[in-house]
Amino acid sequence: MKKIILLIIINLTGVLGFAQENLSTKYDLMPWPKDIKEHPNKFVIDSSLTISITSNQSERVEHAATQFLRRLTNRTGVFLNEGFPLENKKGDIQIQFDEVSKLDIKNNESYTLTVEDSTIKISAKTDIGATRALATLLQLVDHNATEYFIPGVTISDEPRFVWRGLMIDVSRHFQPIDVLKRNLDAMASMKMNVFHWHLTDDQGIRIESKTYPKLTALASDGLFYTHEQIKDVVAYADRLGIRVIPEIDVPGHATAFLTAYPELGSKDDYDYSIERFSGVFDPTLNPTIDITYTFLENLFAEITPLFPDEYFHIGGDENEGKHWDESKSIQKFKKKHGLKTNHDLQTYFNVKLEKILNKQGKKLMGWDEIMTPDMPTSAVIHSWRGENEGLAKGGTLIEAAKQGYQTVLSNGFYIDRMQSVAYHYTIEPIGDVKLTNAERERILGGEATMWCELATPLTIDSRIWPRTAAIAERFWSPKEINNVDNMRTRLEVVSFNLEELGLAHIKNRAVILRGMTNHQDISSLLSLSNLCEPLKIYARNLDGIEYKTYSPFNLFADACVADASDALKFNKAVSKFTKGGASTSVANYLQKWTNDYKAFSQLQKNPKITPLEPLFKNLALVSELLSEAIQTKKISKESIQTIGNTMILLREPVADVELMIVDALNDLSQYCESNYSSK
Amino acid sequence: MKKIILLIIINLTGVLGFAQENLSTKYDLMPWPKDIKEHPNKFVIDSSLTISITSNQSERVEHAATQFLRRLTNRTGVFLNEGFPLENKKGDIQIQFDEVSKLDIKNNESYTLTVEDSTIKISAKTDIGATRALATLLQLVDHNATEYFIPGVTISDEPRFVWRGLMIDVSRHFQPIDVLKRNLDAMASMKMNVFHWHLTDDQGIRIESKTYPKLTALASDGLFYTHEQIKDVVAYADRLGIRVIPEIDVPGHATAFLTAYPELGSKDDYDYSIERFSGVFDPTLNPTIDITYTFLENLFAEITPLFPDEYFHIGGDENEGKHWDESKSIQKFKKKHGLKTNHDLQTYFNVKLEKILNKQGKKLMGWDEIMTPDMPTSAVIHSWRGENEGLAKGGTLIEAAKQGYQTVLSNGFYIDRMQSVAYHYTIEPIGDVKLTNAERERILGGEATMWCELATPLTIDSRIWPRTAAIAERFWSPKEINNVDNMRTRLEVVSFNLEELGLAHIKNRAVILRGMTNHQDISSLLSLSNLCEPLKIYARNLDGIEYKTYSPFNLFADACVADASDALKFNKAVSKFTKGGASTSVANYLQKWTNDYKAFSQLQKNPKITPLEPLFKNLALVSELLSEAIQTKKISKESIQTIGNTMILLREPVADVELMIVDALNDLSQYCESNYSSK
Repeated sequence: MKKIILLIIINLTGVLGFAQENLSTKYDLMPWPKDIKEHPNKFVIDSSLTISITSNQSERVEHAATQFLRRLTNRTGVFLNEGFPLENKKGDIQIQFDEVSKLDIKNNESYTLTVEDSTIKISAKTDIGATRALATLLQLVDHNATEYFIPGVTISDEPRFVWRGLMIDVSRHFQPIDVLKRNLDAMASMKMNVFHWHLTDDQGIRIESKTYPKLTALASDGLFYTHEQIKDVVAYADRLGIRVIPEIDVPGHATAFLTAYPELGSKDDYDYSIERFSGVFDPTLNPTIDITYTFLENLFAEITPLFPDEYFHIGGDENEGKHWDESKSIQKFKKKHGLKTNHDLQTYFNVKLEKILNKQGKKLMGWDEIMTPDMPTSAVIHSWRGENEGLAKGGTLIEAAKQGYQTVLSNGFYIDRMQSVAYHYTIEPIGDVKLTNAERERILGGEATMWCELATPLTIDSRIWPRTAAIAERFWSPKEINNVDNMRTRLEVVSFNLEELGLAHIKNRAVILRGMTNHQDISSLLSLSNLCEPLKIYARNLDGIEYKTYSPFNLFADACVADASDALKFNKAVSKFTKGGASTSVANYLQKWTNDYKAFSQLQKNPKITPLEPLFKNLALVSELLSEAIQTKKISKESIQTIGNTMILLREPVADVELMIVDALNDLSQYCESNYSSK
Repeated sequence: MKKIILLIIINLTGVLGFAQENLSTKYDLMPWPKDIKEHPNKFVIDSSLTISITSNQSERVEHAATQFLRRLTNRTGVFLNEGFPLENKKGDIQIQFDEVSKLDIKNNESYTLTVEDSTIKISAKTDIGATRALATLLQLVDHNATEYFIPGVTISDEPRFVWRGLMIDVSRHFQPIDVLKRNLDAMASMKMNVFHWHLTDDQGIRIESKTYPKLTALASDGLFYTHEQIKDVVAYADRLGIRVIPEIDVPGHATAFLTAYPELGSKDDYDYSIERFSGVFDPTLNPTIDITYTFLENLFAEITPLFPDEYFHIGGDENEGKHWDESKSIQKFKKKHGLKTNHDLQTYFNVKLEKILNKQGKKLMGWDEIMTPDMPTSAVIHSWRGENEGLAKGGTLIEAAKQGYQTVLSNGFYIDRMQSVAYHYTIEPIGDVKLTNAERERILGGEATMWCELATPLTIDSRIWPRTAAIAERFWSPKEINNVDNMRTRLEVVSFNLEELGLAHIKNRAVILRGMTNHQDISSLLSLSNLCEPLKIYARNLDGIEYKTYSPFNLFADACVADASDALKFNKAVSKFTKGGASTSVANYLQKWTNDYKAFSQLQKNPKITPLEPLFKNLALVSELLSEAIQTKKISKESIQTIGNTMILLREPVADVELMIVDALNDLSQYCESNYSSK
């Protein structure tokens, strides 16, 4: 795969050598394709543009081609004469594929794409490959002052991993159908192909059950998907070439199940009720009684026909076994069956579940706790634990593959932890580990996981995107594509195009700030929000006691995102300046924040924005002193001391956010002290 | 009803007189209630707040109370301990109602609401009345710097008209379920109670048919609602106390019907295909053949069970009868049956339809063309034509009522025409017309109509809201509530609260501008968009030839809205200034636009923003010259001439918008000429 790094670009006038880096500053492609060659053609977009499909009918390609035309029209403003693929005529954009694919793990997604002056040719083994090509083609659209065009390139592309997923937890906060659909659109635009639907948890059962209607009546708060809606989402995903894997999380995370059917619980006379907090809770299904298995067998029998995919996720995580330890009958059962530990008991449970699922034509998948010595290798291991959970860095992926399990990686891709895109992007699933072909094949790929304790329909998009686009690249592109700065440049454009596609990750930030200010001018708060990030790694919800499911999630922290944009820019500017660069950018920022605070001061206060006052004031104070120092090339001892004292305050989290420029301000202060200090 | 204007406010310390105007600058209520009394109580909102329902179970009230808690939490940032109505305990907010209402035209929506220091009492005849009270209560939430509270008031309220509707055309542009649901939420917040669903037109059949599957397969472009989705929307609306009236538009506007079933057409061998343009087209059902009636009877039999409401809209508008005139067999039929005109033939058709619908338990409603001498008064007349269509001002409403028809007014409430909110608000449906009680009772109310030739899911909210809130007030509040300035003040807050509720009328404007600029700084374009309005009364789509259904609708005109906010403010400022007021506000605006143009000039151009260059440049030129004149109190002849010439250009529509400050600029220029002219 080394050929990816040093591409040979052939054009009509000769042979040129370009590093991938050169090309990837020129094209805003993501995930970066396996191979791209440039040639001096240019396909100009005008109203006569047409598209045709010269293969068997595929709803996927029909849909993708029509959507391509819609998005092209919207992006360019060109009034197309033809709004649909041509029938029985060749268009300017010609799509050919060999077969309409069954959507499964063996699916071929490769394609080639050639842009000439008046023709664009897309060729693929499967219709899904053809839709991937159209996603690439839309990313190639470029413009100058007078026209939109697609530059001449030839791209050959295929994914590195077969499993490139996004999990969405709809239990902690219910996510309506339109939220799921727009995220599926976004996934497809990033060539992701697995939607893992976390449908049950302590906070609610989100899938309608007709077999066990109390699940819907008592354990959903009225927030659930009907069978029709599930079929609709599955069909929508299928059209985008996305498989849907349901997760029914058992035996732990079962509070909602037991609210409806307490007789399945491990603890007698326990008052189960839908959990409103976040965390890991005790209620657990009782694996020692027959009715548990009857229940699950019937429930699975009801659910599995809705999900055509072979894989079925049973969760299996974070069962701490407290209620098992407290139950005499369960202790007795363990002894009787020679089950020494709770892990053994859970394996007993998992093995029974696997048999049930196998009967129903499904393959059992579970979080990596299910990987115990007695668990058959026919199960699929979803690797999520790693250093944070006291295991090795990189999680249990390699171990699972070596032991013979198919496996999928999520350790390192917990996007709800609000870590930087660089953190996720630089996680290499396999690295230099030596694997046999069979072991390598068992590593299916990975999934970004969006747990929704802190994410509502208003904010979920900004928690998933744009970072997940970079994760999609990690799973699709050759591993040598790993330059963080380059990725960030492309990601900026990707993020904007995701808004064009209908995502709400940008616009809803302004909605939150307008709401916070009672619709006063939000520019000062927007500026502050571009310097702050929500507390990371669950620090926002420490000890699981603060936020309930119905707490407000339209606070300042909810308007902030990972990778605070101005913080990134300022930190770079400081780094350049303190190494001898120009001061302009740094000075402009400092001046801006001083002014922003003045504007903020003039806002009519309310209980939602008042808590930000000290943070903003301290930021302005430090900014003003540093700004003066840079301007005058002088700094007094008093100023240094004031800055030092204020910096301590600025390091403290406020309103569940942290200011992401404290280190840079500190560097700047030290620079001023070293270079400008007087007396 | 005069008592509304001069309210008597009783508080504990004495008796005070306030005009409604005084109160309505104090409370941002819309629609304004029938009666409001103030008292010096204050209900403070803190985390202990609870709500209880001391009546029979009503899903509507349960839902409304829960949503009230969610919105209160989100607005105030207060972490409530209880996220749901209490069971078997009295809460701080106590809701009582006499009966769970059947949702029909006789529904009682009255309520009383009393806010005391620690208790709020809601009392209503029906559960729907109770939900209306909660909508009012949320509008009463106020704050200072440290707390949110609800001021002490007693409100007694009931609507003036029983029919307060919004029609949405989902044929010209399909509007997904989430668009409909958020608009239903908005309607309920404005106490509107009828959603008129225009489901079919030349551009597509949007309701699934299992009886006539070709309607779905050939006449929908895949954009339609399944029966399940329709039931879901109807149930959603019911929960909000909103009736749903379907419209199947026949015999005209039938291109899509005939694309699927050409045998029902009036013209043989005509090549019917889904219409892509806007306008009035020839394809018409053939009213002289039995299969037309069999078709409609079967189709209605399939559809009517989905819509529990008694009223069923059959359209009946804009049938120009061209294909009838061209058909020999239809001419023969007319002669045979003594039908002299096409109107007679259409009445023949309508009467047959009414019998079919009556058999299915439905009442026929149609646009006012159906009101012909032979049409039975059991039909319901939807008055839409008026002065623009060569009829009397105020439409056919009064005439229909006098002739014995129940009737609903939409003339004057065509919100897609992009006229100002003042225009719609000041239309008084009845005025001083003397009516008998029976006649008055037959005037059911009115409907805002949102035709979607030019509105997509991206823009529809900004075409409906906030203007429709003022229309809702027209239909709910006493007619004496009609002060435009006062309404505008309240409407500004209403608009913001509609964003809080999930509407996209504000945020999507920025999305369009970001898209137009390829995500450069949009502040200059946003400023320009606040001075411009989309061309009105269909001038944007003149002759019905320009825009197709799949044309781009994310252009500058789509980012602009009626009642351009800065234009309104500037025009007022100029009016004050030229009457001797201060120049500050005017001068600030002129300076701002000069600067905005500078910022605009620095944007990297593309074909979407380039057309705005001359408009912006000319605005900046005039602004600069006038600014200088005001500053120096001098203006040269050359400047006057330049301004005059430029003004001619500024009056011309550009990019489908008109600049809404040209008259004010002209006034300002004349003022400068009269007062400052030198030489």
